[in-house]
Amino acid sequence: MLESVSPPYASLCADVQRFHARQMHLLDSGDAEAWAATFTEDGLFAPPSAPEPIRGRAALAAGVRAAHEELAAEGETRRHLLTTTAVADPEPDGSVRVRSYVQVVATRRAEAPRLLLMCVCEDVLVVEDGEWKVRERYVSRDDRP
Amino acid sequence: MLESVSPPYASLCADVQRFHARQMHLLDSGDAEAWAATFTEDGLFAPPSAPEPIRGRAALAAGVRAAHEELAAEGETRRHLLTTTAVADPEPDGSVRVRSYVQVVATRRAEAPRLLLMCVCEDVLVVEDGEWKVRERYVSRDDRP
Amino acid sequence: MLESVSPPYASLCADVQRFHARQMHLLDSGDAEAWAATFTEDGLFAPPSAPEPIRGRAALAAGVRAAHEELAAEGETRRHLLTTTAVADPEPDGSVRVRSYVQVVATRRAEAPRLLLMCVCEDVLVVEDGEWKVRERYVSRDDRP
Repeated sequence: MLESVSPPYASLCADVQRFHARQMHLLDSGDAEAWAATFTEDGLFAPPSAPEPIRGRAALAAGVRAAHEELAAEGETRRHLLTTTAVADPEPDGSVRVRSYVQVVATRRAEAPRLLLMCVCEDVLVVEDGEWKVRERYVSRDDRP
Repeated sequence: MLESVSPPYASLCADVQRFHARQMHLLDSGDAEAWAATFTEDGLFAPPSAPEPIRGRAALAAGVRAAHEELAAEGETRRHLLTTTAVADPEPDGSVRVRSYVQVVATRRAEAPRLLLMCVCEDVLVVEDGEWKVRERYVSRDDRP
Repeated sequence: MLESVSPPYASLCADVQRFHARQMHLLDSGDAEAWAATFTEDGLFAPPSAPEPIRGRAALAAGVRAAHEELAAEGETRRHLLTTTAVADPEPDGSVRVRSYVQVVATRRAEAPRLLLMCVCEDVLVVEDGEWKVRERYVSRDDRP
């Protein structure tokens, strides 16, 4: 009988990369509900722009929807570029910690793109119903203490 | 008897990453023929700078050769930085769709690098003679509608 | 009896990505000794800023420590973003050549981040005591001949 085995590290990394890339694509296209669904139901997002962490999909989606509508009105596209990603070995509870650098690039029609923010993103990812989700996300900005 | 199996997702991702990185390195070093050979013989490239898609290796190589000579004359180096890449599961025909963000960075001698373009690159990749090739590439720029 | 096999390419890539990401995180947080320990004992680092290559962990750590203290005094954070990485198949001696693009982003308090340098990084990596180490690193800047 073959034993069930944990997925090897390479599979974990490939899955996390796809998860992260799709999540950023959803965010940048303003698909607020689909983006919020990449968090656990009570997922926590501590962005540098909010005084308190945001918790739960409804609040997460509302925040992205409002931000995207404002940017669309200004004709600005934002991209979240995830690089230099270190995926840790899974914790005993199966969660996985991931540390990445994130550049936020803003572009307006007929203008050159601007490097708006340089951030560090620290995630705690978990698998729910066979899919990766963010349980906790902490983001810091290099231009703030 | 062991059945032939599709390569697992992690292997696919690693192969695509190497393919893409080498392809960008060839492009940025101006190796026009080697770059064109990373497309299928009748490969299609729809860049934002051309009014019509470019089709076929000869036309692809000619475009890169001309662009690189112009940049070399100006002493400018260009880099195509590929990030935030989502590799989809293979289609029934074996082709693979890949969506990435691409920053184009331009640098002149003794000057600071400039973030020239923020693009989205959507590829349809296929395997030919054991090597990955681009069958179709669609690139959009954030500064254009 | 199962034969010992080389790790497949996907595992190699995943391991190299983690190694590189953690190494850049150590560099950017100014953890000079831990960063120097990611090189072999007599590891060689040929950065564009030094007239001669730097060799050995003590010299490597000293250089990073001095640079980080200076930046901290100025309130500047630096990030080394590694992208577009091509990991070659291992050489017969087990070493692995890796070519990447590196953006160096500098951010001061309350200021926008600046793309400071666009570099190409060519590494020769080896495994020592079960861990990846840099044996040789050559970095070039696009703004210099």
